[in-house]
Amino acid sequence: MSDIVTFGETMLRLSPPDSERLENADELEVRAGGAESNVAIAASRLGASATWLSKVPETPLGRRVVGELRGHGIETDVVWSHRGRQGTYYLEHAGEPRGTNVIYDRENTAISTAEAREFDIDRIQDAQVFFTTGITPALSTTLRDTTLNLLKAARKGGTSTAFDFNYRNKLWSPDEARETLTKLFPGIDILVIAARDARTVLGFEGDPRQLAHKLGSQYDFTTVVVTRGEEGAVGWHDSVVHDHAAYETDTVDPIGTGDAFTGAFIARRLDGDDVPTALEYAAATASLKRTIPGDAALVTADEVEAVVKDSSEGISR
Amino acid sequence: MSDIVTFGETMLRLSPPDSERLENADELEVRAGGAESNVAIAASRLGASATWLSKVPETPLGRRVVGELRGHGIETDVVWSHRGRQGTYYLEHAGEPRGTNVIYDRENTAISTAEAREFDIDRIQDAQVFFTTGITPALSTTLRDTTLNLLKAARKGGTSTAFDFNYRNKLWSPDEARETLTKLFPGIDILVIAARDARTVLGFEGDPRQLAHKLGSQYDFTTVVVTRGEEGAVGWHDSVVHDHAAYETDTVDPIGTGDAFTGAFIARRLDGDDVPTALEYAAATASLKRTIPGDAALVTADEVEAVVKDSSEGISR
Amino acid sequence: MSDIVTFGETMLRLSPPDSERLENADELEVRAGGAESNVAIAASRLGASATWLSKVPETPLGRRVVGELRGHGIETDVVWSHRGRQGTYYLEHAGEPRGTNVIYDRENTAISTAEAREFDIDRIQDAQVFFTTGITPALSTTLRDTTLNLLKAARKGGTSTAFDFNYRNKLWSPDEARETLTKLFPGIDILVIAARDARTVLGFEGDPRQLAHKLGSQYDFTTVVVTRGEEGAVGWHDSVVHDHAAYETDTVDPIGTGDAFTGAFIARRLDGDDVPTALEYAAATASLKRTIPGDAALVTADEVEAVVKDSSEGISR
Amino acid sequence: MSDIVTFGETMLRLSPPDSERLENADELEVRAGGAESNVAIAASRLGASATWLSKVPETPLGRRVVGELRGHGIETDVVWSHRGRQGTYYLEHAGEPRGTNVIYDRENTAISTAEAREFDIDRIQDAQVFFTTGITPALSTTLRDTTLNLLKAARKGGTSTAFDFNYRNKLWSPDEARETLTKLFPGIDILVIAARDARTVLGFEGDPRQLAHKLGSQYDFTTVVVTRGEEGAVGWHDSVVHDHAAYETDTVDPIGTGDAFTGAFIARRLDGDDVPTALEYAAATASLKRTIPGDAALVTADEVEAVVKDSSEGISR
Amino acid sequence: MSDIVTFGETMLRLSPPDSERLENADELEVRAGGAESNVAIAASRLGASATWLSKVPETPLGRRVVGELRGHGIETDVVWSHRGRQGTYYLEHAGEPRGTNVIYDRENTAISTAEAREFDIDRIQDAQVFFTTGITPALSTTLRDTTLNLLKAARKGGTSTAFDFNYRNKLWSPDEARETLTKLFPGIDILVIAARDARTVLGFEGDPRQLAHKLGSQYDFTTVVVTRGEEGAVGWHDSVVHDHAAYETDTVDPIGTGDAFTGAFIARRLDGDDVPTALEYAAATASLKRTIPGDAALVTADEVEAVVKDSSEGISR
Amino acid sequence: MSDIVTFGETMLRLSPPDSERLENADELEVRAGGAESNVAIAASRLGASATWLSKVPETPLGRRVVGELRGHGIETDVVWSHRGRQGTYYLEHAGEPRGTNVIYDRENTAISTAEAREFDIDRIQDAQVFFTTGITPALSTTLRDTTLNLLKAARKGGTSTAFDFNYRNKLWSPDEARETLTKLFPGIDILVIAARDARTVLGFEGDPRQLAHKLGSQYDFTTVVVTRGEEGAVGWHDSVVHDHAAYETDTVDPIGTGDAFTGAFIARRLDGDDVPTALEYAAATASLKRTIPGDAALVTADEVEAVVKDSSEGISR
Repeated sequence: MSDIVTFGETMLRLSPPDSERLENADELEVRAGGAESNVAIAASRLGASATWLSKVPETPLGRRVVGELRGHGIETDVVWSHRGRQGTYYLEHAGEPRGTNVIYDRENTAISTAEAREFDIDRIQDAQVFFTTGITPALSTTLRDTTLNLLKAARKGGTSTAFDFNYRNKLWSPDEARETLTKLFPGIDILVIAARDARTVLGFEGDPRQLAHKLGSQYDFTTVVVTRGEEGAVGWHDSVVHDHAAYETDTVDPIGTGDAFTGAFIARRLDGDDVPTALEYAAATASLKRTIPGDAALVTADEVEAVVKDSSEGISR
Repeated sequence: MSDIVTFGETMLRLSPPDSERLENADELEVRAGGAESNVAIAASRLGASATWLSKVPETPLGRRVVGELRGHGIETDVVWSHRGRQGTYYLEHAGEPRGTNVIYDRENTAISTAEAREFDIDRIQDAQVFFTTGITPALSTTLRDTTLNLLKAARKGGTSTAFDFNYRNKLWSPDEARETLTKLFPGIDILVIAARDARTVLGFEGDPRQLAHKLGSQYDFTTVVVTRGEEGAVGWHDSVVHDHAAYETDTVDPIGTGDAFTGAFIARRLDGDDVPTALEYAAATASLKRTIPGDAALVTADEVEAVVKDSSEGISR
Repeated sequence: MSDIVTFGETMLRLSPPDSERLENADELEVRAGGAESNVAIAASRLGASATWLSKVPETPLGRRVVGELRGHGIETDVVWSHRGRQGTYYLEHAGEPRGTNVIYDRENTAISTAEAREFDIDRIQDAQVFFTTGITPALSTTLRDTTLNLLKAARKGGTSTAFDFNYRNKLWSPDEARETLTKLFPGIDILVIAARDARTVLGFEGDPRQLAHKLGSQYDFTTVVVTRGEEGAVGWHDSVVHDHAAYETDTVDPIGTGDAFTGAFIARRLDGDDVPTALEYAAATASLKRTIPGDAALVTADEVEAVVKDSSEGISR
Repeated sequence: MSDIVTFGETMLRLSPPDSERLENADELEVRAGGAESNVAIAASRLGASATWLSKVPETPLGRRVVGELRGHGIETDVVWSHRGRQGTYYLEHAGEPRGTNVIYDRENTAISTAEAREFDIDRIQDAQVFFTTGITPALSTTLRDTTLNLLKAARKGGTSTAFDFNYRNKLWSPDEARETLTKLFPGIDILVIAARDARTVLGFEGDPRQLAHKLGSQYDFTTVVVTRGEEGAVGWHDSVVHDHAAYETDTVDPIGTGDAFTGAFIARRLDGDDVPTALEYAAATASLKRTIPGDAALVTADEVEAVVKDSSEGISR
Repeated sequence: MSDIVTFGETMLRLSPPDSERLENADELEVRAGGAESNVAIAASRLGASATWLSKVPETPLGRRVVGELRGHGIETDVVWSHRGRQGTYYLEHAGEPRGTNVIYDRENTAISTAEAREFDIDRIQDAQVFFTTGITPALSTTLRDTTLNLLKAARKGGTSTAFDFNYRNKLWSPDEARETLTKLFPGIDILVIAARDARTVLGFEGDPRQLAHKLGSQYDFTTVVVTRGEEGAVGWHDSVVHDHAAYETDTVDPIGTGDAFTGAFIARRLDGDDVPTALEYAAATASLKRTIPGDAALVTADEVEAVVKDSSEGISR
Repeated sequence: MSDIVTFGETMLRLSPPDSERLENADELEVRAGGAESNVAIAASRLGASATWLSKVPETPLGRRVVGELRGHGIETDVVWSHRGRQGTYYLEHAGEPRGTNVIYDRENTAISTAEAREFDIDRIQDAQVFFTTGITPALSTTLRDTTLNLLKAARKGGTSTAFDFNYRNKLWSPDEARETLTKLFPGIDILVIAARDARTVLGFEGDPRQLAHKLGSQYDFTTVVVTRGEEGAVGWHDSVVHDHAAYETDTVDPIGTGDAFTGAFIARRLDGDDVPTALEYAAATASLKRTIPGDAALVTADEVEAVVKDSSEGISR
């Protein structure tokens, strides 16, 4: 029985070392990464117990993904499939003006066939929070239903629901995304959304505070967090909007920053923090994540605390 | 204008270093590998000019494959596709009793949609030999037609045709393979086939010499080469059967051994060798290949000559 | 609730790549390894659920060890300690005549202070088998008591007890080992012991069959397995002795072979196999282990089955 | 038949990983690099077909260089030599105040003996542009004649000539360079020169605009490009001077930046761009190059376009 | 006979590559590092002959440390011990807000038992300077006596004594450090101390100039250098205080910066420089050190000179 | 003052990892290697103090070589040169039939200009043994004189002389070698020569025992050792011939085997062993060397002792 249960696809992440170009790579670093397991890991690092649900091919690649996630400290409850591929993404790290680039290779995956009835619904209904993202329904029409059904099941069991909008323009168009995802909104308690997505996909206007307010007012969310990259985030709750700036950070890997933020936010909320405090720990976790290679926020609660308390001072020895 | 033109899929080959298990790998070595480009490379190393035809996605992964092949010295004539995946295979090296294991991830590839009309048929008709393998028609129904059409086009242009049977049991059943591939036999001049495939898939019986003879007699091949792994190969030509033992070798990578053999055999035949001599150079090339990591037989003609002449003697310095 | 619970120290294993000398190494490969977690992993791979109990420092090194073990699929139930070191061992791989060499750096460890009362005894009493080795009591006088107490607790709860004698001459003398370990014998159901240890430490004489028989007769074991390295193992049960030869294998890492054997033997016994069958699967698992780098037997049940059925045949593709 | 033909030495480039000191290195990364092949690659990436001419030892090192260049997509037309070394350079990457350091090991190379009559002059005369640099005549007296003769041959065949001044103070003195290189000026249409070299070696004074104007006026060039590192470049053509600032970039490897600039400039001019537009694409290509390890500008035309259009926005996924 | 003799512990330094977390590392880079050998190396690089004294276990790990130090060009005079561990430290590199983190594993080391009588005192008395740091007496009570005795022996032999205060809060408390180290002050000629330590441990107040003055006045030092990280250092000598700013630098490894500073300062003083000049070379050496991975300042005297003369200008080729 | 002084060239050794082909390598392992420093290292490991004399370029590459040798425990007395290259050799490891291949890049080296007067002759005359090889005079005519002069100086100082014939067919012809090297014979006490060289270069006939006898009788050597690779060696001394078989070994790097043999033989002779015993330790050292990557025999005297005593028995733990 975990505090938080997340559901989604975790991919094998293959990236050339340093800034090497993929087309010239002789070696790829292998890690596992996906928004929903990233969130579970971050929440777990901040003290919540976390389980990730998914459907994974019964192959060495599938076991590679699940093993890494378990190694990061979360529980996994996986439907092992004898059909469908393991999703993969290729990641090319680069500074400006080249920029970090992601190439998805996630067609015909095992998870794209996952139906709600394949999962142990009790797991979800026994948790305090059920979390998924807007990536999951983008992966297949089956998963659109599954996402809706799992959100419904959570609600039915009294489990709070949290959702990261996470629009991916390499997966679908803004119109498809808006149409699909707004249908899920009635089942969602906590919405996390990038300001850019609120504007481009949902068509809202205004600064992040206004976006948070409009989203919170128009739909039936209890909490709305609008993220705005390096400028921090805004949290709307009980009709009040709270701001928190991002911490400065020496970025080595930006992938998973938002997930670290969201996982930490949920964990701290579960732990009883008010929204401004939870935003602060979320921002600190996100800033630490950016110093760590890989999708996963391999931080400790003490380290997050130290960032919030600003206790760093050169080399610790 | 090349001496030999080959057609088929070349995959990205991803393998954990040393004997590491895929499910535990943090790093993958990247190479390009596929039977038809392997044959082109081996032929080219032995002195024939060689071109590889294929259809490849216009992505960094596709460019990765083509770049490596060009770097090995062959020409590439590629249809760049905006749809379809780059085929991939994962390779786990291991000694006995674990054994080397291949995991294909080659669904929905760009090449599976390749039609004969997309290629420059003159390239084939200007060559002396056109080569493909039984892997290509196993990849899609489209490719069954394409293979047939390209073989026909070659014949029509007076180009000799060579074919490696190459049955892959992870791609199709023996029955499917037999039904499809025997239909191609009338268009083939030189057949290369493993003794095991001749038995298991085609249902022939007998020792390799008998298999070669039966195949040569029953179909209209000019030459039949029956390979039998570490025990060497048998060549049937003009109703005569020739044997050649394999050379002893310290194997570091067995993948591509058969292709090295076939490429060298074709190159030496083009160069005017008789069948027994060509078999000898083919066996020497295959034995050198096994000492080289990767699919490609990165040998020199001098090195092959030295093996045939048995001139090695400890460290050369 | 696991089928098998093991207790002991797992060390950080640091080894130079390939055959590099430690004194010349610029890089060390990091893995986790220890007899009792190795056994848990092997058992788990063969289908038993397994939990490893230990006491581990609350440091990145401690988390490194626990994370890896969880990644290999077992449960961990760990007392996190704020005092004591993480045990480490340096491993130099080499062929003959240099030989593989282990350098222990395991003084003042957290686990050396572990007392029985720190652990959740229910975990042990709910399991079918409790397993530890002769290494554990060699680590500290505290651990001698702890080992005895945990074995007693297991018995009291109706849990079967299994014990690998595992004499380590870099930890203590034969006399110390004999005196300490024979005191534990009355609480042990299944004893695994190397023929060499039976002779050198316990002073028995005879061939492995005789050793097994003498041990089984003299003490109150239900089962005695005498291992003899590359010559296989002998199992004594119900006064009958069964032999099983070792499988031939291309060894890349011999460390953990015995643990793979023992874990598989226990798992298959739990699954209902008779002693000769369990020995067969144990030997197959051990042979596969030797092809895998690291302490852990990262095999699948299907692979073990294939070795037993001898179904391997060259490259699988 | 290529749009652009370049001639010069390409060296094996050996560099310790990261910022390691050469005197402490246990490993060297191997790449191929040389101004003239770098220019060919950049031009090819921007859409021009390109061939590199050179003389290379018939050794694994020579094949290593040629293979890599072919893998980057250009044609190579190489005189294989049985005498002379393969030029090598050692590269130590470092930030300030240490700075990146190059150690040449390029004495007695095969190319230093290359004479014009060894090359296929038709290749040059069939191209639209022939390119070489001031490095080539610095390598041997033979190469001074060869450079002059090839430039003459190009002119004679109606091929436009482009030349990068590229003064290297580890190869010769400013006086030697000036005396030799100004003799080549009458045969050159497009001159690329660093402002520093125009001042230090040629003795001109003034800002880059003035330098370009003076050079263009004094000699018979059709186009003069004066580069000034991170401050961009100035192009003089038809008596008009055009400026273009450099793009900001996160540099991982500065080597080859100027060559990327020049290659792109030539390719865009060949494609019909006016000088200001060509300067813009050249600057964009140079800025992308700095994010890529190695000498070669492994960019795509689309990426260059995106920099010019400034369309980047965080992670692309 | 060396110009400078240093005494202290040098540890095996184990660090994950790049910014990887220790708890997730599969590989550790191995180097040797310790303040006193770092100082010897820096002094040696600036032209002084240097010997490092220590007590080291007679194991591959001990030999690993000594071999590396010798490879960096210093002499080593080592008591080989058959008891006691080789000290180790784990180093996690990270940017802000995570920060670089050091985990010591240096309990029960061979050196912690070192007594003055084990060393060749003539070595010290024949040198011009004897150097040790405040780390050494923090390691054991035995070493407190040893440090005192060696300083006394140096003085007795007419050898000048230099001491870096080097407070390490992971080894002892400020109170313990103050009590122990101030007892050593009467035997010290040259004191190097971080402004932070002067405040936190010794309880002085004021800016670095004031701290230097107070320390110099209160105790019987001939020279006091107060370092203040990236803001440079202050040197007090003959009642005059001299400032020197730090050079700007692209840091890849901050560990050992202070030791590089101190070693260079001593070497230049031995070479006859006045304090301001020695501070300048010390700062230049420190700035170069920060561009070099590892504890050791692998610079050349020419490189240091170039920084002082500010002669750098882009890529040197 | 060292027991043994050796003189010769040590090269930078660059080799692709594992069995990778040089023409396909993206990475080279760097080590230092040369017969005379290899001998010094082996002798030092067996307990003799050893110094290597040479002339080395004052560059990072030269320092790289000297640093490594010092790290292996020998003294170096080097003439630092501002002219001439650092010799390099490329090494391709491969099993049969490819075989290990060495590519020399050692033209125009600093050492090729070394004259006897540049060295500290006292170093040689204070030693017990002076050692060099037949490689040194093969490098330049200057070095022929230098070798002769240093041998003479050694004799004059009462230092015993030892010489390894070491014919290298990539450096000179058998005729040149014979003519040059036999002129050195009168100044040599101990000759080591491969049976193959005795036959091919010197024209002797017979089995190794006969070769040793003939060489010993015809020239004025006190000791002749004839090596015959994996079949061991023969030692002639005081007109008696002694045989010693080679030990079986799992070879990972054959380079330096003969040097390990010779260095150990000399060290044990210096230590007072008779010829048969010295041959035994030499063979044991050589067998251990083959398990170690790199030219240097990084063994301990205890390990050699253990091979002689045959005390190995599986994993030592």
